[in-house]
Amino acid sequence: MPHITLSNEFPGIRSLFIYRPKTAAPLNALVQAMLHDPHPTLSAGERELIAAYVSRLNDCHYCSNIHGAIARHQLGDDAALMEQVFQNPETADISSKLRALLKIAAKVQKGGKNVTDEDVSLARSEGATDLEIHDTVLIAAAFCMYNRYVDGLATWQPHDDELYDKMGEQRAREGYLTPPFKVKREA
Amino acid sequence: MPHITLSNEFPGIRSLFIYRPKTAAPLNALVQAMLHDPHPTLSAGERELIAAYVSRLNDCHYCSNIHGAIARHQLGDDAALMEQVFQNPETADISSKLRALLKIAAKVQKGGKNVTDEDVSLARSEGATDLEIHDTVLIAAAFCMYNRYVDGLATWQPHDDELYDKMGEQRAREGYLTPPFKVKREA
Repeated sequence: MPHITLSNEFPGIRSLFIYRPKTAAPLNALVQAMLHDPHPTLSAGERELIAAYVSRLNDCHYCSNIHGAIARHQLGDDAALMEQVFQNPETADISSKLRALLKIAAKVQKGGKNVTDEDVSLARSEGATDLEIHDTVLIAAAFCMYNRYVDGLATWQPHDDELYDKMGEQRAREGYLTPPFKVKREA
Repeated sequence: MPHITLSNEFPGIRSLFIYRPKTAAPLNALVQAMLHDPHPTLSAGERELIAAYVSRLNDCHYCSNIHGAIARHQLGDDAALMEQVFQNPETADISSKLRALLKIAAKVQKGGKNVTDEDVSLARSEGATDLEIHDTVLIAAAFCMYNRYVDGLATWQPHDDELYDKMGEQRAREGYLTPPFKVKREA
């Protein structure tokens, strides 16, 4: 049960957005800018994958499942790939550049000071640009916020793969600025 | 030296805001909404104090110093109070409600799932409202982002108490939406 009375039937962060519209606006604008808006070199799917991976490291059920589902839909509905990344990015079937960026994201998840010159040099040697390194650090940092927000208030987080798939398909297509569809709450 | 080429002489998060205006807009709007805009019951100084405390727990020099300075200016320029909170909120000269909220903030800093029903009950018994609990969790979560962003890209973070005091005085008065003044970079 959520730690506060949210008075709505939406799951995860959506229940908090409805509770507090004033902070929802910039929080939602941020995720749209980071993950969905056009990017010169990183696809939306790659950015969603970074967000899902960090959310898994933070053990946030809602965020890792919804962003994992969005990434799957954007990267060609490859459920196995997302699972490989969750298990171990070092052996996942992804580009060496994305692998180096995920390494930076994992350092950020533990704390910003963990990112070393060597981590950044490795990413550069795999072709990462300054903008990609910047955006990876910001996405990883931001999901350390979203995950803590969702879990820190003990929001309702469904355990229903089909539901995440359906919500993920919507967000993969529409981005974050359209209203969520109403979910029937589990008993 | 920053991990990427920022091409500007601003410190901390301001250098990142100038580098990436697209994400700066929602990041800055969020901090304004959380910390500076009017709040029914928590003063701007109390909210800045929560932000500064979490930033200190995350060992972020820039954020803890700037938000500590803003809190001092808003709470009556009491340098000793901020230092007491940094040392130990349990013995600091603050209200028992704010103490209970800082306890929740410290749990969030470690991870959202650490917040217990008991932490929330304690805050309620000290007079905290649902909105105050919500905003405390969000502020703590958000500073886990800002701190990681600032440190994860190894931004320039001055060591000059007078400078933080001057920047803090500006933000305490104006909020976050006005341009920062230009800082002369240390050699």
